[in-house]
Amino acid sequence: MAAEYTLAELAESCRAQVRGDAGVRVHSVATLEHAGRGSISFLSNPHYRRYLAGTRASAVILAPADADACPVPALVVDNPYLAYARIAAMLALAPPARQGIDTAARVHPAAKVAASAWVGPGAVIEEAAEIAAGAAIGPNCVVLRAAQVGEDTRLVANVTLAERVQIGKRALIHAGAVIGADGFGIARDDERWVKVPQLGSVVIGDDVEIGANTTIDRGALEDTLIGDGVKLDNQIQIGHNVHIGEHTAIAGCVAIAGSARIGKRCMIGGAAGIVGHIEIADDVVITAMTLVSRSIHEPGVYSGSAPMDRAAKWRKNSVRFRQLDDLARRLQQLEQKLKD
Amino acid sequence: MAAEYTLAELAESCRAQVRGDAGVRVHSVATLEHAGRGSISFLSNPHYRRYLAGTRASAVILAPADADACPVPALVVDNPYLAYARIAAMLALAPPARQGIDTAARVHPAAKVAASAWVGPGAVIEEAAEIAAGAAIGPNCVVLRAAQVGEDTRLVANVTLAERVQIGKRALIHAGAVIGADGFGIARDDERWVKVPQLGSVVIGDDVEIGANTTIDRGALEDTLIGDGVKLDNQIQIGHNVHIGEHTAIAGCVAIAGSARIGKRCMIGGAAGIVGHIEIADDVVITAMTLVSRSIHEPGVYSGSAPMDRAAKWRKNSVRFRQLDDLARRLQQLEQKLKD
Amino acid sequence: MAAEYTLAELAESCRAQVRGDAGVRVHSVATLEHAGRGSISFLSNPHYRRYLAGTRASAVILAPADADACPVPALVVDNPYLAYARIAAMLALAPPARQGIDTAARVHPAAKVAASAWVGPGAVIEEAAEIAAGAAIGPNCVVLRAAQVGEDTRLVANVTLAERVQIGKRALIHAGAVIGADGFGIARDDERWVKVPQLGSVVIGDDVEIGANTTIDRGALEDTLIGDGVKLDNQIQIGHNVHIGEHTAIAGCVAIAGSARIGKRCMIGGAAGIVGHIEIADDVVITAMTLVSRSIHEPGVYSGSAPMDRAAKWRKNSVRFRQLDDLARRLQQLEQKLKD
Repeated sequence: MAAEYTLAELAESCRAQVRGDAGVRVHSVATLEHAGRGSISFLSNPHYRRYLAGTRASAVILAPADADACPVPALVVDNPYLAYARIAAMLALAPPARQGIDTAARVHPAAKVAASAWVGPGAVIEEAAEIAAGAAIGPNCVVLRAAQVGEDTRLVANVTLAERVQIGKRALIHAGAVIGADGFGIARDDERWVKVPQLGSVVIGDDVEIGANTTIDRGALEDTLIGDGVKLDNQIQIGHNVHIGEHTAIAGCVAIAGSARIGKRCMIGGAAGIVGHIEIADDVVITAMTLVSRSIHEPGVYSGSAPMDRAAKWRKNSVRFRQLDDLARRLQQLEQKLKD
Repeated sequence: MAAEYTLAELAESCRAQVRGDAGVRVHSVATLEHAGRGSISFLSNPHYRRYLAGTRASAVILAPADADACPVPALVVDNPYLAYARIAAMLALAPPARQGIDTAARVHPAAKVAASAWVGPGAVIEEAAEIAAGAAIGPNCVVLRAAQVGEDTRLVANVTLAERVQIGKRALIHAGAVIGADGFGIARDDERWVKVPQLGSVVIGDDVEIGANTTIDRGALEDTLIGDGVKLDNQIQIGHNVHIGEHTAIAGCVAIAGSARIGKRCMIGGAAGIVGHIEIADDVVITAMTLVSRSIHEPGVYSGSAPMDRAAKWRKNSVRFRQLDDLARRLQQLEQKLKD
Repeated sequence: MAAEYTLAELAESCRAQVRGDAGVRVHSVATLEHAGRGSISFLSNPHYRRYLAGTRASAVILAPADADACPVPALVVDNPYLAYARIAAMLALAPPARQGIDTAARVHPAAKVAASAWVGPGAVIEEAAEIAAGAAIGPNCVVLRAAQVGEDTRLVANVTLAERVQIGKRALIHAGAVIGADGFGIARDDERWVKVPQLGSVVIGDDVEIGANTTIDRGALEDTLIGDGVKLDNQIQIGHNVHIGEHTAIAGCVAIAGSARIGKRCMIGGAAGIVGHIEIADDVVITAMTLVSRSIHEPGVYSGSAPMDRAAKWRKNSVRFRQLDDLARRLQQLEQKLKD
C-alpha cells in the first residue's frame, strides 16, 4: 500500500507554493510524458518541457518560469528536482526493515552485531568486525576482520569490506563494491616487482553512497579518506591514500590514482581520470573523460577530451595533430617572413 | 567424449561447399597455426593467412578467395567466422545441464523456481523472485525480491540481480555483473546532495549476453531497457533510463551515461564514453575510446580519441593544442595580409 | 605483537649502510610527516623531502644524496622504496594462516583440496577443481569445474575462477576479480549476432597480483596468458587470447582488447586502452589514458591523451581540432604563395 498526500501536505514538506487545487491527492511519481491520474510529475531539465502541455499528471513540480504553462495544479519551487527528490522519497514504499542474523549467514563469535542490524543469507562476518544498530548486510556480502559498519548503513549484496575498513552512518553500498583491497604499491627490484605492504585502511564518512562494482583501495601507510556526503557512481576506482572532500560527487568509471587529493563539492564527470599525487581545489567541475594531469588550484570547469567526428575526417585531423608543433613553427616563420 | 562429424555433415549445417574429401572426420576446432589431425580450423582475419599453407588441420573453413591456397579439404562459405561459430558450437561439449535446488542454496519460500531450473550452492533467491524453466542460477548469485529470470538463462556466479529486474530468455550473464543497482540520481541542496529515489527497473530482452562485472542501473522513474540480442562485453557501465536497441554490440569498459538512447545494430568500441540524454541512430559504429558528446543522427563510423605518439613529441604537440585557436586566428590574419 | 628489529638487523636484510646509531630499535613503519618513536620512515618521492627535517621517526630509509639532511639515524641505500618494501614486510604482522575447510564452505567431493589449504565460509569449489598446499580460498569465492589454484595463492573474497582456469603459485587475487569469463566473440549473421564458443582458458604464472574487480577473459581457442610476476591493479579488463609478458605492471582501469600481445617489463598507465591484435615490445611505458592503436616495436615512453584546459578555452581549441587538416592545407598554400 502506497502513501497518499494532498498537494498542500507535499507543499509544506518542501516549502513550495501551490498553484491550483491544493486538495488534489497524489500517491505516486511519474514522468510528464507517462504520468496518469494520481501521479505527481516534475519539470527540471528544459529538454522535457515539450511534454508539459500534454501531461496527464494530477500535479507537476516546477519552477516559477514554467508555472503559467502548466495545465494542471502545480507545486512551484526554485529547485524542482530537489523538491521532487524529497516528494519521491515520501511516496516511495520503503523496503521492510529486517533484523537479526539469517540462519544461512556466518558470523564469527567474536564479531559484534547490533540486535537491530540484519545479516542476510550467505553473508560472512569475520572476527572483531562490528555491525552497528540498524545496519543491513545483504546476501553474500563479506565483512573481513575488524571492519566496522556504521548505523543504518546498507550493503546491498556481494559487497566486500576488507580488514579494518570503517564505514560511517547511513551509507548505501551497492552490489559488488570492494572497499579496502590493497593499493597498487610495488617497488622495482631489477626486472622484478616487490610488493609494498598496504598497511593503512579506508575511512568513509557519513551519508556516503557507493556504486556497484566501485573499488576503493586501502592506504599504503595512512588511510584512504572519503568525506561525509560523498556520492560515488558505479565502477569508480579510487587508489590508495586518496582523500575526497565532503559532498563531492563522482560519476561512473572515473579512475583516481594514488595520493590524489580532491576538494569539497567537486563534480567529476564520467570516465575522467585523475593522476596521482595532485590536488584539486574545492568546487571544481571536471567534464567527462578528461584526464586531470596536474593540480587544479582554482574553482571552475575543466575539460580535456578529444572531439568526436566522422572517422574519415577525424583520421586526417589526427595525422595533423601529430604535426602540430611543426605546423606552429612554420606559421611563426611565415609571420616573421611577412614582417621582414 | 566429443562429438565427431564428417565435412559433409558440417557443410550442410552451415550451407558451405565442400572442397576436397567430404568424408574427412573432425572432432574439434583449432587455430590454423596449432591445429592437428581431427581438427577443423578457419581463416577469417587476413592477418592469419600466413598460417594457411602450413596448417596441419584436417579441414579449414574459408572464403572462396582463399580456397585455392588451401592445402587440405575445405568448407567454402561467404562468412567463414559465422560458419566457424556454428561448427564450434556443434563440436563443443555442452556442460552437463543441472536441475534442482542445491542444499546449500537459500531460496525464499515465496519465490518460484521451475522444476527444471538449477539453483547452485550459495545462491540466494529472495521473496517473489521467479526463476523460469531451464534457467541456471550459479554459485553465490543473488536474486533480490521479485526479480525475474527467463527460460534457459544462465547466471554464472556471484551475479546480483536487484529488486524487480526482468531478464529474458536464453541470456548469459557472466560473473560479477550487477543488474538493477540504483541509478546515480542526486539533487543538490545547497552544499549537500539529496538522493533521488530510483523507482524504475531494468528490463532485458531475449538472447542477451552480459559480460563479467558489467553494471546496468535501474531507471529513475521508468525502466532501463536492453533490447533482444544485445551483446555486452565486460565492465560496461549503463546508467539509468538508457535504452539500447536490438542487436547492438558493445565492447569492454564502455561508459554510458543516464537517459542515452542507442539504436539498433550499433557497434561501440572499447572504453568509449557516451554522455547522457543524447540519441545515437541505428547502425552507428563508434571506435575505441571515443567520447560521444552529442547525438548522432546518421549511420556511419565515428571517432574521437587522441592520437598516440612518442611521449616527448606528444608533449610538444599537446602544448600546441592548447594554442590551437590562437594559431588558427594568426593563420587567418596572414591570409588576410597576403590578400591585401 | 609486532616484530621489532635494530637498525643493524634491518640494514643487513636490505644491504643498506647505517648512518648514526645502529642499535636503534624500530617496530613499525610510518610516513615522514606522521612517524613517531619506534617507527622507521622512508624518503623516495622528492615531493615529500620537505618533511625530512622535521620528522620524528626513529630512523629513515633514504638515498645517499639525502643522507646529510637527515636529522635521525638512517639506512642509506640506492633504492629506498625497494628497501622500505622489504622492511615493511618484515615488520607487518602476517595474518594468521588458516587451514582446513570451513563448515560453511561447499566443496564438491571430486575436488582436491590440499590439507594445508584453507577454504573459507561460503566458498564453493566445483568438481575436479584443485586447491594446492597453502592456498587460501576466501569467503564466498567460487572456483568452477576443473580450475586449479597453485601453492600459497590467496583469493581474498567474492572472487570467481571459471572452468579450467589455472593460477600459479603465490598469487594474490583481490575481491571481485573474475578470471575466465567468456571472451567477447560474436559473429554477425545478417542483423543478429551468433556467439562464438570460447574454448580456451586462462593460464596465470607465479607471483602474480590481480586487483579488485579486474576481469581476465578465457581464450577463444587457445589460452589467455599472464606471465610470471605480472602485477595488475583494480578494474583492468583483459580480452581473450591476450598475452602479457613477465613482470609487466598495469595500473587501474586499463582496457586490453583481444589478441593483443604485451611484452615483458612494460608499465601501462591508468585507464589506458590497447586495441586488439597488436604487439607491444618489451620495456615499453604507456602513460595514463593513452589509446595504443597500433603496434609498438621500440622500447620507450608513449602518450596520447587530450590535454586538459579551462572548459571555455578547451571548447574553442576543440573546434579548431576539427578544422586541423584544413588549417594545415591553408598553411601550405601560404608557404607556396610566399615562395612564388
